[in-house]
Amino acid sequence: MSITITAFEDSPDRGRGLARDMRVRWALEELGLAYDVRLLSFEEMKRPDYLALQPFGQIPSYVDDGLVLFESGAIVLHLAQSRTGLLPVDPNARARAVAWMFAALNTVEPPVFEWSMATVLEREKPWHADRLPMLEGRVHDRLQQLSAWLGESEWLEGAFSAADLLMVTVLSRLGNSHLLAEWANLTAYVSRGVARPAYRRAFADQLAVFEAASARKRS
Amino acid sequence: MSITITAFEDSPDRGRGLARDMRVRWALEELGLAYDVRLLSFEEMKRPDYLALQPFGQIPSYVDDGLVLFESGAIVLHLAQSRTGLLPVDPNARARAVAWMFAALNTVEPPVFEWSMATVLEREKPWHADRLPMLEGRVHDRLQQLSAWLGESEWLEGAFSAADLLMVTVLSRLGNSHLLAEWANLTAYVSRGVARPAYRRAFADQLAVFEAASARKRS
Repeated sequence: MSITITAFEDSPDRGRGLARDMRVRWALEELGLAYDVRLLSFEEMKRPDYLALQPFGQIPSYVDDGLVLFESGAIVLHLAQSRTGLLPVDPNARARAVAWMFAALNTVEPPVFEWSMATVLEREKPWHADRLPMLEGRVHDRLQQLSAWLGESEWLEGAFSAADLLMVTVLSRLGNSHLLAEWANLTAYVSRGVARPAYRRAFADQLAVFEAASARKRS
Repeated sequence: MSITITAFEDSPDRGRGLARDMRVRWALEELGLAYDVRLLSFEEMKRPDYLALQPFGQIPSYVDDGLVLFESGAIVLHLAQSRTGLLPVDPNARARAVAWMFAALNTVEPPVFEWSMATVLEREKPWHADRLPMLEGRVHDRLQQLSAWLGESEWLEGAFSAADLLMVTVLSRLGNSHLLAEWANLTAYVSRGVARPAYRRAFADQLAVFEAASARKRS
């Protein structure tokens, strides 16, 4: 049995670990599973043979012994449900952790992603300054609610789980912005997540891909 | 064992079935499960006792014999994984259907929701006309890829599943817009979904809530 995922040959995040293969790499490292990475150019991601694996032409995809998956959330959930270590064993606690996985991707990520994309793609537009308070307000509201839930806890629900893995990757997109810095407990939560040995191994691996691409461009 | 979900006392979508309780109602109807609905005002949704159930002050929440869940995607997944009828039995086919659940909520819904919110909240803003092609372009790209995947198939992966349930509710947000009408197979797909008896029962139930609220306001 051999796992292969896909990732950007030359990540637009410049190795900051924000591309969605990072979530899957981290989960695989937490579970101690070996995997191969197939690197793709932007052109290759839009070709019919890749669209057959990943209908939206995105990374990552996941292939394991005949099973083909896509969507980083679904891949992390599959790994967490089919192995031990990333979800509680008790059925109710497990369902709660899965609820937090969806909260990370469906309630917290959309305003974070919208803010993040606007600051990149619309920064020079005449309306950006007028829209920014609205975008920041949406992020602020979600972080306030998340901070209130987390309180002084180490993780969202008991022990570290796939929910924390996803939530930390979502919050990481806020980087050093004032939006995250406002919440000391969330800043500490992200720090705890990225300090995990599995995160650090996954981060180093995706950074090495970016650095190799940069070296090829220079030579 | 008794299931209770929460929903808007007075839905901002005016009974069009776009609020996220619709997904859970539809899943419960597909599975033939009885449930109660606790209706909430906007004020009640932000109170501490409700935030203990739903940390982001949203609907729906789900309570079943000591298990408290939130996030419509997580609730539908929990129902689908703990009962028979909304996911394939074969493990690989089941993982594929779950991947499509994430695709509906994490890849298709964000641009649809962003477009939908902008057309409501930013319609009068001086920049709306300039931004609209970008927002429509993002929706267009996703629908093009989805349409290519669906082809002439009836559902996303074999038989109707929780993935179709979520995807149909996401596409329904596009209503009669030209964005959806451009894709005949997606229009037919949504029509097949909303023609299901379980959808129609769920829709009628949420509409009755809205109509009761309207009648109270008139009297």
